[in-house]
Amino acid sequence: MTKTASTDLRSDTVTRPDKKMAAAMAEAEVGDDVLDHDPTMRALEEKAAQLLGTAAALWVPSGTMGNLIALSIHLRRGDRFLAPRGAHVLHHELGSAAWLAGGMPEPLDWNAGPGRPTADAVRAHASGDRRYDALHTTLLCLENTHNAAGGAVIPPHEHAQLAAAARDRGLRVHLDGARIWNAATALELPPAALTVGVDTVQACLSKGLGAPVGSVVAGTSDFVAEARRMRKMLGGGVRQGGVLAAAGLVALDRVPALATDHRHAKLLADGLTELGWDITEPQTNIVLAAVPDVRLTLDWLQEIGVLAVPMDGNVRFVTHRDVTERDIKGVLRRISHSTDRPAGIPQAG
Amino acid sequence: MTKTASTDLRSDTVTRPDKKMAAAMAEAEVGDDVLDHDPTMRALEEKAAQLLGTAAALWVPSGTMGNLIALSIHLRRGDRFLAPRGAHVLHHELGSAAWLAGGMPEPLDWNAGPGRPTADAVRAHASGDRRYDALHTTLLCLENTHNAAGGAVIPPHEHAQLAAAARDRGLRVHLDGARIWNAATALELPPAALTVGVDTVQACLSKGLGAPVGSVVAGTSDFVAEARRMRKMLGGGVRQGGVLAAAGLVALDRVPALATDHRHAKLLADGLTELGWDITEPQTNIVLAAVPDVRLTLDWLQEIGVLAVPMDGNVRFVTHRDVTERDIKGVLRRISHSTDRPAGIPQAG
Amino acid sequence: MTKTASTDLRSDTVTRPDKKMAAAMAEAEVGDDVLDHDPTMRALEEKAAQLLGTAAALWVPSGTMGNLIALSIHLRRGDRFLAPRGAHVLHHELGSAAWLAGGMPEPLDWNAGPGRPTADAVRAHASGDRRYDALHTTLLCLENTHNAAGGAVIPPHEHAQLAAAARDRGLRVHLDGARIWNAATALELPPAALTVGVDTVQACLSKGLGAPVGSVVAGTSDFVAEARRMRKMLGGGVRQGGVLAAAGLVALDRVPALATDHRHAKLLADGLTELGWDITEPQTNIVLAAVPDVRLTLDWLQEIGVLAVPMDGNVRFVTHRDVTERDIKGVLRRISHSTDRPAGIPQAG
Amino acid sequence: MTKTASTDLRSDTVTRPDKKMAAAMAEAEVGDDVLDHDPTMRALEEKAAQLLGTAAALWVPSGTMGNLIALSIHLRRGDRFLAPRGAHVLHHELGSAAWLAGGMPEPLDWNAGPGRPTADAVRAHASGDRRYDALHTTLLCLENTHNAAGGAVIPPHEHAQLAAAARDRGLRVHLDGARIWNAATALELPPAALTVGVDTVQACLSKGLGAPVGSVVAGTSDFVAEARRMRKMLGGGVRQGGVLAAAGLVALDRVPALATDHRHAKLLADGLTELGWDITEPQTNIVLAAVPDVRLTLDWLQEIGVLAVPMDGNVRFVTHRDVTERDIKGVLRRISHSTDRPAGIPQAG
Repeated sequence: MTKTASTDLRSDTVTRPDKKMAAAMAEAEVGDDVLDHDPTMRALEEKAAQLLGTAAALWVPSGTMGNLIALSIHLRRGDRFLAPRGAHVLHHELGSAAWLAGGMPEPLDWNAGPGRPTADAVRAHASGDRRYDALHTTLLCLENTHNAAGGAVIPPHEHAQLAAAARDRGLRVHLDGARIWNAATALELPPAALTVGVDTVQACLSKGLGAPVGSVVAGTSDFVAEARRMRKMLGGGVRQGGVLAAAGLVALDRVPALATDHRHAKLLADGLTELGWDITEPQTNIVLAAVPDVRLTLDWLQEIGVLAVPMDGNVRFVTHRDVTERDIKGVLRRISHSTDRPAGIPQAG
Repeated sequence: MTKTASTDLRSDTVTRPDKKMAAAMAEAEVGDDVLDHDPTMRALEEKAAQLLGTAAALWVPSGTMGNLIALSIHLRRGDRFLAPRGAHVLHHELGSAAWLAGGMPEPLDWNAGPGRPTADAVRAHASGDRRYDALHTTLLCLENTHNAAGGAVIPPHEHAQLAAAARDRGLRVHLDGARIWNAATALELPPAALTVGVDTVQACLSKGLGAPVGSVVAGTSDFVAEARRMRKMLGGGVRQGGVLAAAGLVALDRVPALATDHRHAKLLADGLTELGWDITEPQTNIVLAAVPDVRLTLDWLQEIGVLAVPMDGNVRFVTHRDVTERDIKGVLRRISHSTDRPAGIPQAG
Repeated sequence: MTKTASTDLRSDTVTRPDKKMAAAMAEAEVGDDVLDHDPTMRALEEKAAQLLGTAAALWVPSGTMGNLIALSIHLRRGDRFLAPRGAHVLHHELGSAAWLAGGMPEPLDWNAGPGRPTADAVRAHASGDRRYDALHTTLLCLENTHNAAGGAVIPPHEHAQLAAAARDRGLRVHLDGARIWNAATALELPPAALTVGVDTVQACLSKGLGAPVGSVVAGTSDFVAEARRMRKMLGGGVRQGGVLAAAGLVALDRVPALATDHRHAKLLADGLTELGWDITEPQTNIVLAAVPDVRLTLDWLQEIGVLAVPMDGNVRFVTHRDVTERDIKGVLRRISHSTDRPAGIPQAG
Repeated sequence: MTKTASTDLRSDTVTRPDKKMAAAMAEAEVGDDVLDHDPTMRALEEKAAQLLGTAAALWVPSGTMGNLIALSIHLRRGDRFLAPRGAHVLHHELGSAAWLAGGMPEPLDWNAGPGRPTADAVRAHASGDRRYDALHTTLLCLENTHNAAGGAVIPPHEHAQLAAAARDRGLRVHLDGARIWNAATALELPPAALTVGVDTVQACLSKGLGAPVGSVVAGTSDFVAEARRMRKMLGGGVRQGGVLAAAGLVALDRVPALATDHRHAKLLADGLTELGWDITEPQTNIVLAAVPDVRLTLDWLQEIGVLAVPMDGNVRFVTHRDVTERDIKGVLRRISHSTDRPAGIPQAG
């Protein structure tokens, strides 16, 4: 039996640069970004800052570094920070928010919806106790879209309430906007509308936008100056980074195209629901499926040419620019036709 | 009106050395515990290790340092550790478990009872995912009695299940036994019965036992050798510590006397319940009272000569060896007779 | 052969509390210094601040913790600090200045005399380069007396020049004054005269002054407030610390008595020189002897009842309040009469 | 007056990818290097490991991160490490070896030649004192070529002695080989000959070899597995890193071409010497010139179209693949013909 090529829905990080992006990289005007400021880097950082509605931005090799830099600058040793349960900074950055940025996390329950804490919870956990021997809560870290909640979006009015509660308690606000572009697309708002009341934001150029490497971390000019120093400390300062920034510039033009990924996620979700799966309705490009046995299901999916990953007891599928409508339909067909599905995976009609 | 002396129920840490203890301190045989090993220190550490059922023990200036040393030795940068919600290491040690010991905490819900997570929760959160880019969960931190849960005790069979679940998942177990003596007294068991399956334990000599300064951290001889080094790093190595160890030796003889504190707590709880208060039935020497407004209530109590502290939205009263039955009755009388109580505090009779 | 008791010249940290001090400890008025502010602690801290010429002071369990707290507050991650070669913070505090306080040290040569860097060296190493990717030098750490230089004193005019050079370059100045009392005694100046131009100072109550446990770290009120928090973080906050503060208060009255220790050191040095030893002329209470083989010499000395320690290739003897003139003469006699001295140790007359 | 284009001799980090390299990047086969292992990354890492004589290697975004990862893995909190005075890890990585890797540095004097400590110094500073309260020296960090010493090379027999002394004292050895390719070229040896006795090595793909971004850190397979995790922690894990690895593969073929840079450095040094400058004879591609006033000299050089940087009181010129013989001759001509040179810069013949 011929094995057909797999459809890779593990993450939107698997996207590959296309010809246009590769050409931009090959032709990029570059300089030494540690000594000077690589001209293409500068152009990218200016464009990102403009899109994100901040005064300045800094390219970093990864979203993890962007978050780490922001938290390291915001937090003093032992400060407490609030973040929604399951946040990327809590679970997927190897604890660097704690040991390296120096923060003691307090996870907030999702009482406002998937991935969404309430403004009341922010107020309750940031009592403003400033006694010398009390934990001081100084930062709220939001995540939009929220990965572990299946790409869930924070509605603008809730975002405003959360930011206001943080301000009211003297907290700074960092937004892990790795997929802010997806949130903006889903909300049909400019990304800058999602950073109102936020001090700093991290946004990925890889993932849905398709750049091979890199993120930006953005905020005031003073913050970015400090961030530049922290990036050097961590070993994230690169030389002729313009080759990557050139890809980033192309990527930033591709925000509108994310709507396609969202349509594909909907298509996949609807198809699976129709087949009897227990699906969380997708808000952006992530589809979570509750299954009896995640490990068995993933192995079976791989066997039939569908790559996905586990996410907190669910199977996670992510659509992205290297996946077409035809691919999604193929995935549904393979799932529907497979005869050796694990126990508990529904039989098609 | 004459102001009567206040009854201090803020904490069992307010106890003062009595004459016997002061005499022991004055007459202690001492040496330089950094250069050599102060003989009284050695005697204290041996006695503590014996009581706790470990191979060795080390005196430390505070319970916070004892926990910090244990966590620093158990955790590698970025390791995740599990601890019950509200644990002292999470909330009352200024985040040092994170920024200094290097751990990323995961709070466990109290699904088995006040302050008590379930063994299932341990297993669920310590999946044993050893991928290079995943958080590794390596430590379970228990607390017995659990302060924020009102001095709640972990029953021995639950303790055994928790420790077994940890072992099963390859986790080490540290016990914050700041008040292990109270737990042992309540359970009518020797303290060593509460450290079964535990790698390291911290136990306070101050608090209920009444030493002015100090705790011990205990475990294997190798652990204690490392702990000694870490104590020096943190600046906790002291010279003629024998003066404090002498107090500690007296304190360790006073475990049985804690039963009196527990009786007093019961007396206070029963009295308050009778007055119509909303009281958590005390298991040891801590009484938690739910009140409409903690701040107003504490101010009123102070006004009538009763000192207490806030604890997660409750008023916390702690009985201890410097408080007599008569004092407790006095507290109840003052509360009962006061005429300017805050709204929501029930009127007597 | 009867073994006579050894004379312990390993360190002035071996002194034991005498009866007066023990009585003060037994009778101390105490409180809970974490919750409130123990009254005897408060008295000690006020007296220490007054003697040191600072606005405020904080008791800490050890000099190591005092230095660590000061450096932790002065330094940001990766800041460079200057300290004389062989400084205690560089060599005898287990690297905590680096890994915990976050500083990158730059040792300064002793170009002005034993243990004494020049003001030119301070200027040369603190160029004020503020580029984002350059090390920023932000602190000068002095040590007076300088332990590894044999208790060497910094002359006031040199101190003034060093502090001025630091100011001029925007550096803060921390003084490791573990033995500042010896320096003041040798210079016949009040201790406060040695903290001019200094931001923070650490001074030991143990060592020559004879308290069993404790040091103070002193500076502005804001600094001390921060230091109090950092002390709690490190686990150095103690409860009824008044028992130790009472010893500290007695100790602070004993500064003048240090002159006796200095006389004893001179007596020892002169005696050894007369016996043909290669001795660094002592300035305070420390005598360094250059010997061909430190290990063999120390073993031999121990055999004849003289305890000393190695110090950077020398044998170090320290006089203190538990050593009398008669003891010193006894030491010289034993050395002089011993017949099995190691090769290279001169034969008496 | 027309300003001619400047010749940029500030660093070999200013090199730009040429057409061949750009084409390789554009055509690289890529994957998600965090989830899987990007195939071009894998090829690069295998080739680098082979050249460096190690079992495995890991791509990192910068040499600073490579060194930081190695030190973080080798050092435990507070361990002491030895490095030559002026080493890059001490002066040019923002102190991360201290605050982040946790090491307390001990700089070694250059007693064997420029940038070269002696094996005796290694032995003297690593006494093997394992007492619990002593600094433990556990790592020797070498640098070949040594940047601050003007690109100085460690002769193989000295390297062997240094490594043997380290082994003898139980130290690990890390080699900062940012410019190991230049050392190998100067010595006419394969790079692997310079890693004998070394545990880990970092080598740059940018600098002389001309890749736009990246270094490798290499050692045993176990080390590389740990390094991969640490890279993720620091935010150095990248997605489609193959675009950069493709440039790295091209770069690794260009080691032999470094001989040209060395010839150009010699040409520049000889020319300047002839003009009366005080020049350190270059061993590789770095020329150090001692001048009366570094700042004034650099400004003047910039004015006449020659870019250089300050280095510890010298002017540093670095030759590299984007500078031709003709460029060097132009530099000499401009220097020779300039009429407004600063005081102390010699007049040409």
